[in-house]
Amino acid sequence: MMGKVFLVGAGPGDPELLTVKALRLLQSADAVLHDELVAPGILRHVNPGAWVKNVGKRCGSKRVTQEEINFLMVSLAAAGQQVVRLKGGDPLIFGRAREEITALRRARIPFEIVPGISAALGAAAALQTPFTARRGPAAVVLLTGHRENDERSDWRELARSGATLVLYMPGRNYGEISRRLRRAGMDGQTPCAIVSRATTPGERVHVTTVAELAAAPVLEAPALLIVGEVVRQAAGHLSFASLPPNSALQFHAESLRKEVTP
Amino acid sequence: MMGKVFLVGAGPGDPELLTVKALRLLQSADAVLHDELVAPGILRHVNPGAWVKNVGKRCGSKRVTQEEINFLMVSLAAAGQQVVRLKGGDPLIFGRAREEITALRRARIPFEIVPGISAALGAAAALQTPFTARRGPAAVVLLTGHRENDERSDWRELARSGATLVLYMPGRNYGEISRRLRRAGMDGQTPCAIVSRATTPGERVHVTTVAELAAAPVLEAPALLIVGEVVRQAAGHLSFASLPPNSALQFHAESLRKEVTP
Repeated sequence: MMGKVFLVGAGPGDPELLTVKALRLLQSADAVLHDELVAPGILRHVNPGAWVKNVGKRCGSKRVTQEEINFLMVSLAAAGQQVVRLKGGDPLIFGRAREEITALRRARIPFEIVPGISAALGAAAALQTPFTARRGPAAVVLLTGHRENDERSDWRELARSGATLVLYMPGRNYGEISRRLRRAGMDGQTPCAIVSRATTPGERVHVTTVAELAAAPVLEAPALLIVGEVVRQAAGHLSFASLPPNSALQFHAESLRKEVTP
Repeated sequence: MMGKVFLVGAGPGDPELLTVKALRLLQSADAVLHDELVAPGILRHVNPGAWVKNVGKRCGSKRVTQEEINFLMVSLAAAGQQVVRLKGGDPLIFGRAREEITALRRARIPFEIVPGISAALGAAAALQTPFTARRGPAAVVLLTGHRENDERSDWRELARSGATLVLYMPGRNYGEISRRLRRAGMDGQTPCAIVSRATTPGERVHVTTVAELAAAPVLEAPALLIVGEVVRQAAGHLSFASLPPNSALQFHAESLRKEVTP
C-alpha cells in the first residue's frame, strides 16, 4: 500500500505551539525528516519506533542535499510509510517547499500540507504588539535577508509602503541589513527589534533603530528583524531584563520608551 | 487572586490546527470570549463549566462594542478568572488586538499572547503552493481589503514590489478590489485565487486573473484573495471539482494550467 508524506510546520519553538494535528502525526509517523532548527522538545514527541533523520543544512560534517531529501521522502512513502517532513515555522513561508512538492507530484506520492505557526507570529507574540493597526501600518511584509539572487530583492517599494517589515534569516551582518534598508529609503530613526528564539525560554529581544542596527549584539538563530513604527509600542513593555547589561543598548530602549504614546 | 487573560489564536478553521497550548487553555478556561468566525468544532473543546460569550461583530441583533469586550476581560480577570479571548487565525495579524492590549496594560491585568495559524498559511496549504520561491517572489505581503481609512492604503508600492499579495477580508465587491489592484499598477493577467474556508470541509478555491476577478462567484467568509505568479503553480493541481460548473470559470483555470512550467 502507498504511504503518504506530510509537510508539517513545527512552529516557532515552543513545543506547545505545535498544532494538535502535527502532534498526532509525529506520534504515529513511521519516519521523520526534520530541519536543523526544530527544537529537541518537539522531537521528544516523535513515535519512539520511528526512523528520525536530521536533514538540516548544518547537520554535522555532511550536508544532506535537496535531492537526497526528495529521494528519501519518495522512497519511504512508496514503501508504504507515513512520512513527516518537519520544517521550522510554517512549511510554505520561506520553507523551500517548492522542490519537495514538485518531486512528490512527479512521483505521484500522496502528500498533505500541515500549516505551522510562522516565525513572524512568534515574534509578534514576543513583542506583544500587533503588526498592523487601525491608525498605523495597513500591511505586513514578510521577506528574507538571505537570498541567492540578491539583485531581484529590491526593497525600495517595500520600504516606502509604510508596512511593517518582518525580515526572516537576517544573518549576522546587521550592518549590511541596515545599509540595505537605508538605501531602500527607510528612515534611520525607524525603530526595529531583533527577536531571537521567540516563544522559547531562551527568547531575547533587542530594540534599536535602523541607523543603530550595526551596533546591536548578534543574537542566536532563529532570529527575526522587525522594522516599523509598531516596534515603538512594543518597546513600552519590554523590560531591561530582556536587554544585555550595556548602557548604550539600554539607552535605545529607554529613548524609544519615552516616545510611547499611551 | 488575580486572574489572567490569554489572547489566543484559533487558527484558520480546522479544529486540529489549534495549537496544543490553545487546546489546553480552552479546556481549563473559566471564561471564553470568542469572535464570530471561530468554528463550532473549536468551541466544542471549551471546558463545559466555562462561561462562553460570542463577542463577534455579527452576533445576532446586538453588537458587542470594543469597550464592552475590554470591560469583560478586565473584570473577569480581576475577579480571579482565567479568561481566553479567542480570535480567528492569529491574534496579532489583523486581529484588532491593539485596543485590548492597551486596556489590559492600563488595568495592570496579566496577559499572554498565544499565536495561532494565520489565515494566509491556511490558504497556502489549500493552494499547496509556497508564497515565495527561489526563482520567484522574494516577499509576501499581508494586507486587508477592509480598511476604515482607505486613503492610507495605497497599494502602488506593494503591487509593484513583485511580492505575493495576500488580501485578508476582501469583502464581496471583487470588482472594486480588481480596480484597486489595476489602479495600483498590477497587470490584469496576474493570476489570483479566492480561497474560502481554507482547511475546513467547506474549503473552496476559485482561480482567475486580476482582470476577470469581478466575474468571480462570491465565496463564503472567511475568504482570502491571493494575487501573484505563485497562483499559477497552484492552478496545476487544482481539480475542476473545486470550481463551480461554469465553463467560463473553468476556462480560467484551464488556461492558467497550460502555462504551468513543470
